[in-house]
Amino acid sequence: MTILDIIEKKKKKLSLTEDEIKFWIKGMLAGEIKDYQVSALLMAIVLNGMDDDEIFYLTDAMLNSGEVVDLSSISGIKVDKHSTGGVGDKVTLILAPLLATFGLKVPKMSGRGLGHTGGTADKLESIPGYRIELSRDEFIKQVNDIGVAVISQSGNLVPADKKLYALRDVTGTVDSLPLIASSIMSKKLASGVDYIFIDVKVGNGALMKNLEDAKKLANMMVKIGNRYGKKTFCVLTDMNEPLGYAIGNALEVVEVLDTLKGMGPSDLLEVVVSIASLAVSTALNINEEEAKVQCLKKINSGEALTKFISMCEHQSGDIKSLEISKRIVSFRSPKAGYINGINALKLGEIARAMGAGRYTTEDKINYKVGIVLTRKKGDYVEANEELAKFYVEDKDIKLNEIWSCFEIGDESILDEPLIYGVIK
Amino acid sequence: MTILDIIEKKKKKLSLTEDEIKFWIKGMLAGEIKDYQVSALLMAIVLNGMDDDEIFYLTDAMLNSGEVVDLSSISGIKVDKHSTGGVGDKVTLILAPLLATFGLKVPKMSGRGLGHTGGTADKLESIPGYRIELSRDEFIKQVNDIGVAVISQSGNLVPADKKLYALRDVTGTVDSLPLIASSIMSKKLASGVDYIFIDVKVGNGALMKNLEDAKKLANMMVKIGNRYGKKTFCVLTDMNEPLGYAIGNALEVVEVLDTLKGMGPSDLLEVVVSIASLAVSTALNINEEEAKVQCLKKINSGEALTKFISMCEHQSGDIKSLEISKRIVSFRSPKAGYINGINALKLGEIARAMGAGRYTTEDKINYKVGIVLTRKKGDYVEANEELAKFYVEDKDIKLNEIWSCFEIGDESILDEPLIYGVIK
Repeated sequence: MTILDIIEKKKKKLSLTEDEIKFWIKGMLAGEIKDYQVSALLMAIVLNGMDDDEIFYLTDAMLNSGEVVDLSSISGIKVDKHSTGGVGDKVTLILAPLLATFGLKVPKMSGRGLGHTGGTADKLESIPGYRIELSRDEFIKQVNDIGVAVISQSGNLVPADKKLYALRDVTGTVDSLPLIASSIMSKKLASGVDYIFIDVKVGNGALMKNLEDAKKLANMMVKIGNRYGKKTFCVLTDMNEPLGYAIGNALEVVEVLDTLKGMGPSDLLEVVVSIASLAVSTALNINEEEAKVQCLKKINSGEALTKFISMCEHQSGDIKSLEISKRIVSFRSPKAGYINGINALKLGEIARAMGAGRYTTEDKINYKVGIVLTRKKGDYVEANEELAKFYVEDKDIKLNEIWSCFEIGDESILDEPLIYGVIK
Repeated sequence: MTILDIIEKKKKKLSLTEDEIKFWIKGMLAGEIKDYQVSALLMAIVLNGMDDDEIFYLTDAMLNSGEVVDLSSISGIKVDKHSTGGVGDKVTLILAPLLATFGLKVPKMSGRGLGHTGGTADKLESIPGYRIELSRDEFIKQVNDIGVAVISQSGNLVPADKKLYALRDVTGTVDSLPLIASSIMSKKLASGVDYIFIDVKVGNGALMKNLEDAKKLANMMVKIGNRYGKKTFCVLTDMNEPLGYAIGNALEVVEVLDTLKGMGPSDLLEVVVSIASLAVSTALNINEEEAKVQCLKKINSGEALTKFISMCEHQSGDIKSLEISKRIVSFRSPKAGYINGINALKLGEIARAMGAGRYTTEDKINYKVGIVLTRKKGDYVEANEELAKFYVEDKDIKLNEIWSCFEIGDESILDEPLIYGVIK
């Protein structure tokens, strides 16, 4: 068997065997298979696809390329949540403590921001002192003690995915459903939980631009998870406008606190509660409507907020010292009308340019900068009324690009739903 | 413009512009575009193709990546011949001196063997003392003096093709008609002749396995050549069995001498004469039938042989010292019947394994080894009658693999034609 034979097969749209996929992943990590060979194979996969078996074998080969986290010393039902990435997506920060208030165990490993989308690990690091890296023992102890810990993904978790992702990023081979599904699932399955909930974002600000692809991806991931014996659920949610009002690390943490105080944006709350009630009803085997009521109660009573603050304190984060930029630019509507669109992708890119995200892995994030929308889609604005506040520091923003993010019309057009459905 | 934009376009099956293709080739040679990015793009081209304009731009960009040979100081009509590669293909060695006897100028730069196919440069080097590398001045002087010189391709001719070819070879991206056409034509156009004749081999022993692909490739090359203002002709010839009887470097030179003495295999002679008469009639503007008669006369009179010997002497080759292996294994037919197939690809691979070819560019060829068929397709053999002689040295041959090269049946089946046609 050689990598050339494997490339030839995929080029001819044939299915790769488990042995062939293992050979590829192993040879790649050993440096015997070269980057230029892997990227040719990746492009053949992008264009010719993979069947269910191949996707499963790839996930499995990646999963076994590094350490698999042993969470057996955490007692109770362990759940994990993942998002395919969006703009203003701070769901994990609310959902993780919320689930913990139900007695579920949430040992969450989160990624960094990528492209125009933010990362939970970065958002938490905007809290002064927050220790995003805990030792294995600290991590397990904290989850056993308070039910939740959010840390950054271990360096040795799924090294094959790390390697493949870095290569996909620079070879135009990111947008392949089989590659996305196996990348996500290899990390989720390596994290050793009982239930996996995935927020599949759909829309211009997401990796999945349309509902059809999002459904395909969700089905692939559910199949992989179930074949692995881990119950996996995908919730498909809208990402045509940013989620909530805030975009940018510390600004999003502020919005998280507001939401945990029962004063958050309704779309953010709805996404959090829909995933939370699904998780609670599934893991604790109670009626979903009832679970939803209880979720809202946990928020309105302040219990979830207390859990979040407890988590921050356990990880040495000083939430009171959270800083946001003092240099605010108010962006006002050039005309009166209905807001028919707020382009999440473009706003994500602007926030990144302002310093809220990275262009290369070496870039340093400025946690204090970002955008807070004043209005959301469907709202009516008067001319000269505020649309958004820009919290800037040293980096310039281009006004013309901001104009193009907002679509304002004389009539209100019908909205996409916020939640498209659940695939399980 | 970035290479990622270019990869994205080709991934979506869009046409690349001239600027984009230049950007790719220039960036690749400068090392700014990485091998793994080029190989992803190559795979996208293999699977999504290129249109006529793109193929032309790629040829042009490669052609201009290095030196372009200035042959203006060679007087007369300059012709070049190329083969897409076959087993036992020694046509150039006969054709080049033959064309020179007509007063045509043949400044021929030849390649080395690749895969299971031999290379003219290697075959000539089996002649003791033959100087395959001449200086520019020596090359031009010899062509002006005797009409013909066959040398190896200059190191700085079309470096982009060299780079691309090396990468294609190890990434499963060889079999793309646009990439093959632009690779061949960039080298041919860089060699600065007036007429280009290309022998497009078709069959199991050739790069083009079927006539349809061969025709497509021929059409692409003719279009590129003509768009460049160089008259280009493709002759499509069979490569389902080896050409002539001999496979292997010195053994093929012996067959060349036999053919130049009028005692060569009929299929080899037919291919030589069909290309030669096309070239002579086109370049000298005479009737093709008449050209054919004259070609045969030049061979039967010994004039072409004299020219070949003169060329060898000018390049210090001592044809009398040519050596072939003395260790001969006679391979006999296991049964009586008609030879319905002689697998060129398999025999080419066996010859390579015997030492007549290379696996890596560093491998040393053993010029003395090879195979000489005793029978050809369509012949009848008695049981135990000889099918072929194997001239071996230090490397083992596997008998079972040899059996599978010959197809012997009770009835003779209809042959493919030797010459499929001309595309111009």
